Amino acid sequence: MLYFENDYCEGAHPAILQKLAETNFEKVPGYGTDPYCASAKAKICAACGCPDADVTFISGGTQTNAIVIASMLQRWQGVMAAATGHVAAHEAGAIEYTGHKVIALPAHEGKVSAADVRDWCATFYADANHDHMVFPGMVYISHPSEYGTLYTKAELEELHAVCQEYHMPLFMDGARLGYGLMAKGTDVTLQDIARLTDVFYIGGTKVGALCGEAVVFPHGAPAHFMTMVKQQGALLAKGRLMGLQFDVLFTDDLYTRISRNAIETADRLKEGLAAKGYRFYMESPTNQVFPILENSQLEALEPLAKFGFWEKYDDTHTVMRIATSWATRMEEIEQLIDLM
Amino acid sequence: MLYFENDYCEGAHPAILQKLAETNFEKVPGYGTDPYCASAKAKICAACGCPDADVTFISGGTQTNAIVIASMLQRWQGVMAAATGHVAAHEAGAIEYTGHKVIALPAHEGKVSAADVRDWCATFYADANHDHMVFPGMVYISHPSEYGTLYTKAELEELHAVCQEYHMPLFMDGARLGYGLMAKGTDVTLQDIARLTDVFYIGGTKVGALCGEAVVFPHGAPAHFMTMVKQQGALLAKGRLMGLQFDVLFTDDLYTRISRNAIETADRLKEGLAAKGYRFYMESPTNQVFPILENSQLEALEPLAKFGFWEKYDDTHTVMRIATSWATRMEEIEQLIDLM
Amino acid sequence: MLYFENDYCEGAHPAILQKLAETNFEKVPGYGTDPYCASAKAKICAACGCPDADVTFISGGTQTNAIVIASMLQRWQGVMAAATGHVAAHEAGAIEYTGHKVIALPAHEGKVSAADVRDWCATFYADANHDHMVFPGMVYISHPSEYGTLYTKAELEELHAVCQEYHMPLFMDGARLGYGLMAKGTDVTLQDIARLTDVFYIGGTKVGALCGEAVVFPHGAPAHFMTMVKQQGALLAKGRLMGLQFDVLFTDDLYTRISRNAIETADRLKEGLAAKGYRFYMESPTNQVFPILENSQLEALEPLAKFGFWEKYDDTHTVMRIATSWATRMEEIEQLIDLM
Amino acid sequence: MLYFENDYCEGAHPAILQKLAETNFEKVPGYGTDPYCASAKAKICAACGCPDADVTFISGGTQTNAIVIASMLQRWQGVMAAATGHVAAHEAGAIEYTGHKVIALPAHEGKVSAADVRDWCATFYADANHDHMVFPGMVYISHPSEYGTLYTKAELEELHAVCQEYHMPLFMDGARLGYGLMAKGTDVTLQDIARLTDVFYIGGTKVGALCGEAVVFPHGAPAHFMTMVKQQGALLAKGRLMGLQFDVLFTDDLYTRISRNAIETADRLKEGLAAKGYRFYMESPTNQVFPILENSQLEALEPLAKFGFWEKYDDTHTVMRIATSWATRMEEIEQLIDLM
Repeated sequence: MLYFENDYCEGAHPAILQKLAETNFEKVPGYGTDPYCASAKAKICAACGCPDADVTFISGGTQTNAIVIASMLQRWQGVMAAATGHVAAHEAGAIEYTGHKVIALPAHEGKVSAADVRDWCATFYADANHDHMVFPGMVYISHPSEYGTLYTKAELEELHAVCQEYHMPLFMDGARLGYGLMAKGTDVTLQDIARLTDVFYIGGTKVGALCGEAVVFPHGAPAHFMTMVKQQGALLAKGRLMGLQFDVLFTDDLYTRISRNAIETADRLKEGLAAKGYRFYMESPTNQVFPILENSQLEALEPLAKFGFWEKYDDTHTVMRIATSWATRMEEIEQLIDLM
Repeated sequence: MLYFENDYCEGAHPAILQKLAETNFEKVPGYGTDPYCASAKAKICAACGCPDADVTFISGGTQTNAIVIASMLQRWQGVMAAATGHVAAHEAGAIEYTGHKVIALPAHEGKVSAADVRDWCATFYADANHDHMVFPGMVYISHPSEYGTLYTKAELEELHAVCQEYHMPLFMDGARLGYGLMAKGTDVTLQDIARLTDVFYIGGTKVGALCGEAVVFPHGAPAHFMTMVKQQGALLAKGRLMGLQFDVLFTDDLYTRISRNAIETADRLKEGLAAKGYRFYMESPTNQVFPILENSQLEALEPLAKFGFWEKYDDTHTVMRIATSWATRMEEIEQLIDLM
Repeated sequence: MLYFENDYCEGAHPAILQKLAETNFEKVPGYGTDPYCASAKAKICAACGCPDADVTFISGGTQTNAIVIASMLQRWQGVMAAATGHVAAHEAGAIEYTGHKVIALPAHEGKVSAADVRDWCATFYADANHDHMVFPGMVYISHPSEYGTLYTKAELEELHAVCQEYHMPLFMDGARLGYGLMAKGTDVTLQDIARLTDVFYIGGTKVGALCGEAVVFPHGAPAHFMTMVKQQGALLAKGRLMGLQFDVLFTDDLYTRISRNAIETADRLKEGLAAKGYRFYMESPTNQVFPILENSQLEALEPLAKFGFWEKYDDTHTVMRIATSWATRMEEIEQLIDLM
Repeated sequence: MLYFENDYCEGAHPAILQKLAETNFEKVPGYGTDPYCASAKAKICAACGCPDADVTFISGGTQTNAIVIASMLQRWQGVMAAATGHVAAHEAGAIEYTGHKVIALPAHEGKVSAADVRDWCATFYADANHDHMVFPGMVYISHPSEYGTLYTKAELEELHAVCQEYHMPLFMDGARLGYGLMAKGTDVTLQDIARLTDVFYIGGTKVGALCGEAVVFPHGAPAHFMTMVKQQGALLAKGRLMGLQFDVLFTDDLYTRISRNAIETADRLKEGLAAKGYRFYMESPTNQVFPILENSQLEALEPLAKFGFWEKYDDTHTVMRIATSWATRMEEIEQLIDLM
């Protein structure tokens, strides 16, 4: 069975497991005050070109989104996001559970446009009754988006500008950030992201770690951020587990190198499927591939390969998601191409 | 430097790391639907004597408390807990953040008494205006308590009875459960706990795991529990990390065996310190030892041994906490006794 | 200055003030347990044809919406509403503040269609990952809608059916209910509403009262509803203020009679404006009239008549709202027609 | 039947009803922007000696408490209150519903002592782990307290000082403020309160109004306070109802004069009961009287006079509450004294 259902089906990069084993009996303080967290933070700051950034490790993406958003918004504010954004659609109302509205904007292949943000804000502030409405307080984007698409540097500059204009932080969900950074043709670097956002995270769970996302506040975290992390239940006693993983990932460019593997395998897959005449639902430059399959063919593949269901295309076709990852081997890709 | 500041300063039991390495490249589904979670759940059900229990893995204690409590209480209810209970005192208001009051009861060496629960409830329901008050909706206890003390089976029976009488679930925080089960003189077994509570958790973070608590609902979880776990941000994509750890801990009695080590080392420490004339703040039968130290002596020890500050005793004395764990070596204990 | 900005610019029907004066020094118990509340409830039950309905009085509309929704939804559920619905757009996030998502559906002249509800629910339950999403838990409609439009009985039957099918309560915001019931051509009666919804409210603030909405649960209120009202801060000590007003409004059909006045004056206004060649943004059969005015004309009218701004129509035209009410005098209407 | 169960059993002062009738058909803008609100605010500012204070009207006490507290606390903070304080005990968890802990301090006849606040804060900040705890963010006091007792000016000065020291606002619940200001022997004036607190409210519901409390922020309200009032459902469309009532109450010292009546009648009652040998549970200088009655006597009185149950005193005695108000007539008092 070839397994391509998602990009979190394996464990961790072996270098992480090795380091966990080597350091296992070192006694270190808890709650993220250990030397591995410190080392990882320093390496991440360096990689981002932000010596004074604040870095915090949180175990998963939904939790990170809920914590970042709820700690940065004022009570009367909501977060703007694409209607297809993870916080809008697939977090079981985690944002609303903290008391905040997700203001849904049109999704352009999963992305938010600066023009839509500006229009929405302009209309809002022009309304004489906007005191009776939810204020726009933050913009959430994901890069890569849930559709695998990427912002260009120019698009991020525009989003940054409109956020500055309306005094809103710009928050980038980077659950798959490595795959975005290594995509062919992207002009966006980690340093660009640190320069153009107010907070973003570097995904670990989907990029080589057992768990963990590194939240980076380039200009510093909100006051009492650690207490809010605790209040939302996300302060791990053994913070070393997080620190150590990111320390390994940010040593000798490991994060970059393993991310590139996902891109190379996805690109080879797209090439192979295109050569066989497959159509794609969307051009995605990262590690998610969205072929449109005939339902009969899908049924035939079921015992042989596992994909993720994306959506119904028409009565006889289905859009599937094939995800590669840091761990995908090229030979699996060739087998899959042969199979299809 | 001898390090006894807490029971979460090391990594994980080596068998866990080994299993993580062995299974690392197996591809398994996410969100707790993998075979390791299934296996761990089955073993835990067996150990609890509850074939139909519902078991869920959550990454840390505060999160577990907040999720269990917020998913079992009705909106008009609060949770009763000792004033010294973790949910009342040391979770940054995580319970209130979910909208619920923690109703503080007197702490008897960290424990809640059934008599206090009954009195409180009787007074509440006798009040003609109780519709204007927070209803008692659940009882939270920790076993061992934050002071290392334990309930007897008779005490649990009484708590169970009063909870039944007032139709409230009884919830046991077992962050250090292994150390409670292995304490000398306890008459409480895991099966007793499964019989006498409505929900409890088996702590992993402090008992051999990198992270993770196993929440057990002996009579089944609340409807849509998984969605509520997601809504509170605690559903890990790589659920295998949790499942696999508990699978190892519940294989060949590992959990029991490593818990016993903490007790044996703590008992030896208490014996050694008592022989040297030390007084203790509290008789604790588990892995936390609370000697009363002269401040001058404490200062002298500082460069040699690290303890946890507990509280000021008087102007010249301080109560310190010395914690042993699954990983403590007897030779460290002997060194510490020599030192003091 | 002719004032038509809204339908809450006057005080109360004089019969209410008179009754307040007559009963002022009677000593009655608090929190809604007084005889006036009891009498009003009985009259409302009779008017609704629901002898066993539960009736509660709450001081304003936003509060009522937030209380009803938050007391009927489960934690994992959101409320479906038209994107233009009051709860979605104009309550400063009051629903999200209670932890629940407002799921925005397309608005058809302010109304929700049963087909859209069914499609949304069908798509939701067909999604294998719906456990990671906000469950549809309730449907909110307003009748009249924020655009003054009305559901037909057939539309309510369909909404009722789809709500039954998906086990969701149907909630009708009747802030302007009297004006809906008295509109020409409507085939919906109060008894129909009581039969087809699970909860609705009879607006007082906009229909003759100083304040207050009567929430009706035809099949009984949720358990501990009164405590939830208290918890959300809405339980008035002097409940008599509410009870007495609704007692007067539901005596000798006063509510019906004064509602009819708003319709008759609005209808005369529409007729008069149409005769003068005015266009309307929307056909509204109730007490809100939406003429499209030239901006120059609007400017000229400003010192003479006060309307509500609705929205920009194009660069030279604006949609305004003219609201009549129980208190509007026909001579004011004639003056306004003359003026325009 | 003599009725002394509470101080909100009558309607409103007749001058209020008269003004409501006189102004009934004036058309004024909504949501508190009407001239009556403006006039009332100006008069209250003058009475408080704070020309720049911000005044907002909210319909009831629990709602006011929840709104003020939730709009002034940061997410990581709780509100300190006497264990017997209204927010701690009798609001169905309204404060926790907004996500904040009520930190219970010892009650000294219903009052909070500055020394307890200081001790609590000092202990809190001395704890190395206070980042894992709820920060003290505000002090709530009621004046008169729930036991009818009053702070002295010196006590308020001390509370003010400790709040300043720890950068916490001091909030006074003045649901019965008039009765506190008019009590014999008090040295606290309205101007003192405006000088020594950061926010307080002037109770209307229990002091002559149909409903309504006037919230005063002597140094200005929090940013976007009106939106938060809306978000918590408390922004009345017909704000005139509130403004007009307080405008009347603050014209020609009406508030003061009617408050004095409650004190004079209560004082006469205490004198009369003392002369007959009754004991009191507590010396209360305001409008609440707490005699200790024999249960047999209580039973005999039941068909003749209605009091509020306060608490069981011993097996044969009960503490009852007799409340006078602005509306109590001296002849009712004499009848009651005769009766007992």
